[in-house]
Amino acid sequence: MSKRSGQLRLGAFLYPTGHHIAAWRHPDAQADAGLNFRHYVELAKAAEAAKFDLVFLADGVGTRGDSVDFLSRTAHSYVAQFEPITLLSALAAVTERIGLVGTASTSFNEPYHIARKFASLDHISGGRAGWNLVTSSNEHEAKNFNRDKHFDHAERYERAAEFAEVTAGLWDSWDDDAFVRDKAQGRFFDPDRRHVLDHKGRFFQVKGPLNVARSPQGHPVVVQAGSSEAGRELAARTAEVIFTAQQTLEDAVNFYADVKGRLEKYGRHPDDLKIMPGVFPIVGRSESEATEKFEELQSLIDPKVGLALVSGLTGGFDLSGYPLDGPIPDLPETNASKSRQLLTIELARRENLTIRQLYLRIAGARGHWQLVGTAEQIVDELEERFVNYGADGFNVMPPVLPNGLKDFAELVLPELRRRGLFRDEYTGRTLRENLGLRRPQNRYVADGK
Amino acid sequence: MSKRSGQLRLGAFLYPTGHHIAAWRHPDAQADAGLNFRHYVELAKAAEAAKFDLVFLADGVGTRGDSVDFLSRTAHSYVAQFEPITLLSALAAVTERIGLVGTASTSFNEPYHIARKFASLDHISGGRAGWNLVTSSNEHEAKNFNRDKHFDHAERYERAAEFAEVTAGLWDSWDDDAFVRDKAQGRFFDPDRRHVLDHKGRFFQVKGPLNVARSPQGHPVVVQAGSSEAGRELAARTAEVIFTAQQTLEDAVNFYADVKGRLEKYGRHPDDLKIMPGVFPIVGRSESEATEKFEELQSLIDPKVGLALVSGLTGGFDLSGYPLDGPIPDLPETNASKSRQLLTIELARRENLTIRQLYLRIAGARGHWQLVGTAEQIVDELEERFVNYGADGFNVMPPVLPNGLKDFAELVLPELRRRGLFRDEYTGRTLRENLGLRRPQNRYVADGK
Repeated sequence: MSKRSGQLRLGAFLYPTGHHIAAWRHPDAQADAGLNFRHYVELAKAAEAAKFDLVFLADGVGTRGDSVDFLSRTAHSYVAQFEPITLLSALAAVTERIGLVGTASTSFNEPYHIARKFASLDHISGGRAGWNLVTSSNEHEAKNFNRDKHFDHAERYERAAEFAEVTAGLWDSWDDDAFVRDKAQGRFFDPDRRHVLDHKGRFFQVKGPLNVARSPQGHPVVVQAGSSEAGRELAARTAEVIFTAQQTLEDAVNFYADVKGRLEKYGRHPDDLKIMPGVFPIVGRSESEATEKFEELQSLIDPKVGLALVSGLTGGFDLSGYPLDGPIPDLPETNASKSRQLLTIELARRENLTIRQLYLRIAGARGHWQLVGTAEQIVDELEERFVNYGADGFNVMPPVLPNGLKDFAELVLPELRRRGLFRDEYTGRTLRENLGLRRPQNRYVADGK
Repeated sequence: MSKRSGQLRLGAFLYPTGHHIAAWRHPDAQADAGLNFRHYVELAKAAEAAKFDLVFLADGVGTRGDSVDFLSRTAHSYVAQFEPITLLSALAAVTERIGLVGTASTSFNEPYHIARKFASLDHISGGRAGWNLVTSSNEHEAKNFNRDKHFDHAERYERAAEFAEVTAGLWDSWDDDAFVRDKAQGRFFDPDRRHVLDHKGRFFQVKGPLNVARSPQGHPVVVQAGSSEAGRELAARTAEVIFTAQQTLEDAVNFYADVKGRLEKYGRHPDDLKIMPGVFPIVGRSESEATEKFEELQSLIDPKVGLALVSGLTGGFDLSGYPLDGPIPDLPETNASKSRQLLTIELARRENLTIRQLYLRIAGARGHWQLVGTAEQIVDELEERFVNYGADGFNVMPPVLPNGLKDFAELVLPELRRRGLFRDEYTGRTLRENLGLRRPQNRYVADGK
């Protein structure tokens, strides 16, 4: 395959105080970021000024860290923060062009609510909404929703697939031109352009129609993160953006080819899905400045937090009985995130890391791709992945916020632009247009009509 | 009881094109209001400039009118509009002082989601969130949520009571000062100030804690609308504002005394609950101008829409076989809104109305209290209800928007202010403070601590 040209896409992944596990302890960090609306307004406006495609918010329906050692939790900062749909809706009112992508789980939600809220956000924002469709894999989340255990892996992906199908169907409840609003004739809508889904499946029975008009983007952009076999297949069928984690160029290129290769059987074109791996950049004006920044953050990690993180990423098993300076023990296959478990254990084996070295190695990016260096060094890496078809763009995970985003905009973006790899101005009106995704046709409208 | 002094509270009930059933057909109406964000920004800012306590949004989880005659539905305008939580969150970002109250049903939601979203909105808005807790009584809503039928009246109120209890418990998950964010010690929160609800009830099992810090108001303000026996009891136990519908002073005074009298057994003070009936005002600079405005709107009602409305308000039975110019037939007790059925039938009997006369009589206010006249005449009526303990304030339902709200602000408010009945400026920082409601103490904090 020849090397590609064109421009890459960028997301700004806004984790409250930043993505480094000890970010909140950094002197620059806004420690109350999780519930500081002004902080998010500043970040969203900065990302928009820098022409990022989108801001991205993670989510969980419980207090994170409940599944691991209690003591370490008091050092965790991601336990109480804004709910993404409310936060993105508020940010919609103070931004104009940037996409607004939020996570919502299919495990403990109803498709009617989710379809409705993201369609509503799409209208409020003038076509900038995106939904990161995830499944929930923590028991402490299940316990907030009438269940003792979470759904097992296969069932939760089956539910997710049906959930996505219902949601897409509800988004087509009305033709784009269904609302005629003819005051003289007293005809608010055309009944022939209203469609009743009447879905009856294994997990859901949903009649419809949705009580929101078809939204500016037709459908809000659907994002997914799963990289397991079931996750890849679900993404090939329903996702338009994949937010993923690969450590090496080889893994990234293989993943890219694998997922794009699955699209055809669902009648989709490779361009209908953008692959945007997470990247955790620590950028300095010199290499030593970057390394110092990184070391400063690493020194702030409480060993208990590091251990809890490794436990979480390797499947949720209690590792506190194992020596910190010994290897990761053999672990059974998890029923939580299988792909995350595999990636983490592979990394430890490949680099021959002890538990302590592993947490120091992954704490920053929490399993994502970590780059420490000058703007030029970082852009070399991003470019390499992009031109070799390892990525269509990246979801940028600043180590500390707000400064990490500012550093990326001031140091990395000029270098990307110098090489022609990133836009100077928004060209699209909607998130879909900026990402280069087509607007989906309404399923009820005959081809060619 | 001596006549009361003091000031009344006002809500601005924002129904997309206005509350009159034919509002959208009026030349002044913004026909696409339901999905026009700028329209709502304008309304919220106008209501805030006028010092209303709050804006109020209704909701349903289906396309309204699906339970009645299909043909009439094409003339209905409340079928596809913003979802309230997304809309209020967006409005939070462009307003500073006004309360933001949205409806969400307990019938097809999970308490963890609702507690979280309203707590998040309370943080985003700096303490201005309110939740109008309702139960869902339409089958077309149930069919969007895996059910063939909705819950029956008693079960749905039992579920609502438990839902409210869980939500309140989740809002107390963290003490106000739980987040110490001690960077040097690496201590983000104090584990002794974190509380696990561990609710196990008939309808819900919810472990907690909530993943949002305790919000500025402690709890978002809880609003309710039910006026049936079960609804009154639920309100006495859990509501802080009641949005109700009484046609006469006598009914209003009786309702007020009845509900306030139920508070003591729940350890509550009469001031802990504000009763704010809906009022549908058509105000003119002269009485004849007001009457002309009203007649213009009445002339826009399609008889099929009128009949469908009467069917809906009297319990959802099909009345299309009865002569429009004959009386309302005897109807069985509904399993939908019992109080709404009773109020509507009583009105028809009291005023000896035919079906046509009834729809003309109630179409405007959809069962609420309708006032047509000059500012002075309207304020006479409002004052009479207020000083005689028939209301603590009113939820204003403008007939057509945006002009109906503007008329109220420009004509009625100056007269209310001249009589000392309404504020010139906001005095409180939060919705709770403006309404005169105390901030609830955290249930886990010992008295006097």
